[in-house]
Amino acid sequence: MLFAPFCGLIKISLKMNETKSSWIRKVTLAKPTLQDNTADTDRLISGLKTDLQTDAVHIDLDLIKKLPDLLRKWEYSLRCILFKDRRRWLVTGMAEINEARTFAGLAVDLGTTKVVLRLLDLSDGRILGESGFDNPQLVVGPDILARIHFAETAGGLERLNELIITGLNQAVQDLCRSCRLKPQDIYAVTIAGNTAMTHLFMGIDPRWIIREPYIPLINKPGILKASDLGIQVNDGARVFIFPNVGSYFGGDLIAGIFYANLNQQSDAAILVDVGTNAEVVVGNENWLIACAGAAGPALEGGMTKMGMVAGPGVVDRIAIDPDSHEFRLHTIEGLPPKGICGSGIIDLAAALFLSEMIDIRGKFVPTACGKHLKKIDGLAHLVIVPANDSATGSELTISQADLDSLIRSKAAMYTILETITMSVGISLKELTAFFIGGTFGAFIDPSAAIAIGMLPDLPLESYKPLGNSSLGGAALALTSVDFLEEIDGIRDRITYLELNVNQEFMNRFSAAKFLPHTNASLFPSVKK
Amino acid sequence: MLFAPFCGLIKISLKMNETKSSWIRKVTLAKPTLQDNTADTDRLISGLKTDLQTDAVHIDLDLIKKLPDLLRKWEYSLRCILFKDRRRWLVTGMAEINEARTFAGLAVDLGTTKVVLRLLDLSDGRILGESGFDNPQLVVGPDILARIHFAETAGGLERLNELIITGLNQAVQDLCRSCRLKPQDIYAVTIAGNTAMTHLFMGIDPRWIIREPYIPLINKPGILKASDLGIQVNDGARVFIFPNVGSYFGGDLIAGIFYANLNQQSDAAILVDVGTNAEVVVGNENWLIACAGAAGPALEGGMTKMGMVAGPGVVDRIAIDPDSHEFRLHTIEGLPPKGICGSGIIDLAAALFLSEMIDIRGKFVPTACGKHLKKIDGLAHLVIVPANDSATGSELTISQADLDSLIRSKAAMYTILETITMSVGISLKELTAFFIGGTFGAFIDPSAAIAIGMLPDLPLESYKPLGNSSLGGAALALTSVDFLEEIDGIRDRITYLELNVNQEFMNRFSAAKFLPHTNASLFPSVKK
Repeated sequence: MLFAPFCGLIKISLKMNETKSSWIRKVTLAKPTLQDNTADTDRLISGLKTDLQTDAVHIDLDLIKKLPDLLRKWEYSLRCILFKDRRRWLVTGMAEINEARTFAGLAVDLGTTKVVLRLLDLSDGRILGESGFDNPQLVVGPDILARIHFAETAGGLERLNELIITGLNQAVQDLCRSCRLKPQDIYAVTIAGNTAMTHLFMGIDPRWIIREPYIPLINKPGILKASDLGIQVNDGARVFIFPNVGSYFGGDLIAGIFYANLNQQSDAAILVDVGTNAEVVVGNENWLIACAGAAGPALEGGMTKMGMVAGPGVVDRIAIDPDSHEFRLHTIEGLPPKGICGSGIIDLAAALFLSEMIDIRGKFVPTACGKHLKKIDGLAHLVIVPANDSATGSELTISQADLDSLIRSKAAMYTILETITMSVGISLKELTAFFIGGTFGAFIDPSAAIAIGMLPDLPLESYKPLGNSSLGGAALALTSVDFLEEIDGIRDRITYLELNVNQEFMNRFSAAKFLPHTNASLFPSVKK
Repeated sequence: MLFAPFCGLIKISLKMNETKSSWIRKVTLAKPTLQDNTADTDRLISGLKTDLQTDAVHIDLDLIKKLPDLLRKWEYSLRCILFKDRRRWLVTGMAEINEARTFAGLAVDLGTTKVVLRLLDLSDGRILGESGFDNPQLVVGPDILARIHFAETAGGLERLNELIITGLNQAVQDLCRSCRLKPQDIYAVTIAGNTAMTHLFMGIDPRWIIREPYIPLINKPGILKASDLGIQVNDGARVFIFPNVGSYFGGDLIAGIFYANLNQQSDAAILVDVGTNAEVVVGNENWLIACAGAAGPALEGGMTKMGMVAGPGVVDRIAIDPDSHEFRLHTIEGLPPKGICGSGIIDLAAALFLSEMIDIRGKFVPTACGKHLKKIDGLAHLVIVPANDSATGSELTISQADLDSLIRSKAAMYTILETITMSVGISLKELTAFFIGGTFGAFIDPSAAIAIGMLPDLPLESYKPLGNSSLGGAALALTSVDFLEEIDGIRDRITYLELNVNQEFMNRFSAAKFLPHTNASLFPSVKK
């Protein structure tokens, strides 16, 4: 097996072909006369009506105050920067009709660990710049649970809110500077994050997220004023916060569904986002069903001794020479190997299985492994990188326990996929597209994942890595004012499937604990 | 002629019979369970949906922050205080479901000279209290023109805005204290004022109101947050500002139309508001036409030497003994006479005419006036109150010039009424109701006004004084959330008639300069 040719990200451009409903509209108004004495504000609203097909237009008092001077200076011709709140339009800014200016939108992936920003030109959706920073709430606690508990202490919620808002404001300033823009040039902001992060971002109480019956304070935050949230961008700017389905299915996943266009597929497709949990959504233009389950940290590279998250020097591709059984490694940026990431482990397991160095149970076959196999503390280890070749000076190995854990993870993943599709009466084979979000999706080689039976045996072209689909969805939302309503609509259509770990589930799980599966006919393409 | 029995105010209760759409709604929500994990905020919105028939419900972030604690404390049963912004509902406050509390609304008549407040119970429209204060902008200038010029100086607009907002906040505090309420108990505010006062109240530039082509900055301010305007009431409270038709037809008059229910009359009726200008609206449920014209200061008591605005000791009723030609005076509060108000002057002119002391041109008849007539500085004066009997120690007189001026004013008024009704092809006789707003309307004796031909010769019961119709309309607006849309609708239906003082107008004006009119057949009830 050679390195899979499939390692880039596809660009999602499905929605781009649709008629875009622009954020920026030109208006030329009739100048007032004795016969036509409509007030300035009402004149502008009436002028926009032709274009917007409604006079449900709201203009903030701050903007109204500036209107008489600006309208006369601009001789009643101008551009309005708009935002759409359901059927109500908001004028967030105004500009001279032809002046060369950038009206920017800011998309934010509000991660528990990392926050990523993307600046777009609202007029054409062009990317202006991107940056990321560690979520400053990490100083309080690494995970959601720790932060929610901190939020319950006196002043804790305010502190967490201040950390993320201050951090974001600083990042916005830096990103704008690098793009030769000012924060004041940003008129629209979209925020996609999990339910807890979104709550902390709004400064609202997250305590009930982690207490039975696990309900958020808000599902659809909708549109807020940036200034009300303390975000330092244009004074009139609005912020759209992605809705959540519940405590454990957040706006980041809704953003992914939206980015993958899952809600507009004519045939059933699937979206999988793998982190500590695997979040899965199956659906089409008519229905969406979602579930989340523990797929195991093995897939994140967080469990094996040599495992780590993807980064320079980390092994992300492994092949095995069919004759010599020598490893051929590929590391990120070509640096000496220092560890292995989730996609590397899947590659490794697939290569070991296809070269018959492990059997269908995932156990080392000593005759095939030969000199690579050694015992450490009484447990079988396979040496992948000798000490001399590694960046750490120690050999990189994988143990039988690591492999057992990987097999449990892959079996859990496959079982979740089987369960959710069965719940809607379709088989995995009927899925026409398989979207994979997250870093995992960006690096994974689907043929390797299929070889070990983690992902179903679909044609390789069905697999579509999305990259940061949370950021992608947040950015895509900024390309049309009409998308905001579509996104709230996606949320409303999702049915959440509570994974019931019953005997039937356990039977399927047991069957999936073989390579690729007890029922080999499910994986006709996997041939040794 | 005796004192007319007609001097009280009718209570407008037409609208009260309609189905009221209450500001306060009770909601009992299903408590969250593992099977029903809708978030608190969305649960509340969904609970209100049954009642409101829409989920277009907005809740401010400040309120959302309080929601989780309150919902659990109240066991998911509560009252919501609502406001309606077109088809969108706003939750402005929340309360325990049965706790005895008053949710108040504040109606404000924002006059150039005087500001009047009325506090209502939002649950039933009951009046809780009323107060008034001099518009603090009087220190800057007595009239609109002076204030607009001041607003154009550096910091002038801000100063004027601060004066009225501070004044109102103080008055609200005092009024609340007298009603044993707190400003925080006020959840809804309605403001009816003329266009310039409304602009200064919002702190928006009024300069274009007085410059050709005389356009306001805004016609329909709609609904604003009280806190955005600096009004210290409940944090969630909203303010509805009555719309205007233009620079010279303000929200106070729209409030009057609404209060008189002119927009729902099946037959054509008329509303007249007399101040420095006479503002006139004719209409019914299908159409509304408005105009304004200078009716002359005579009617305000601002022109004659003895004239003054109504107040204690001011003559408001005059009769003349048919035999002795002695004056019988009535003063406000029965105090010694110190002057005469507009309604007193109309009474006087009517009595003089009916007792033939003046002729049909309004000229003194010396033989009939006898000893009351004297020359001062070569001009004929009629002594109404001898120096001994007056509060001032000087005699109170009316001169031929005063009478001439009154006749020009009454002729102007009648001509305006004739012109506006003619413009829609009806005659004054066809009017089924004649509403008279303002202090003038409260004190005027319609039979006297008919006797001098100022008002048309309609059955006396047609005349309906409204009192402070601006305040009345503002208060009425607080009795149903649905009224706000009706009020904006009234504005949209008004056609403004520019009074064209052409030859035809002048001919009608000349004909109206006789007592009661050149064509006596128009006034069959006027008999000497």
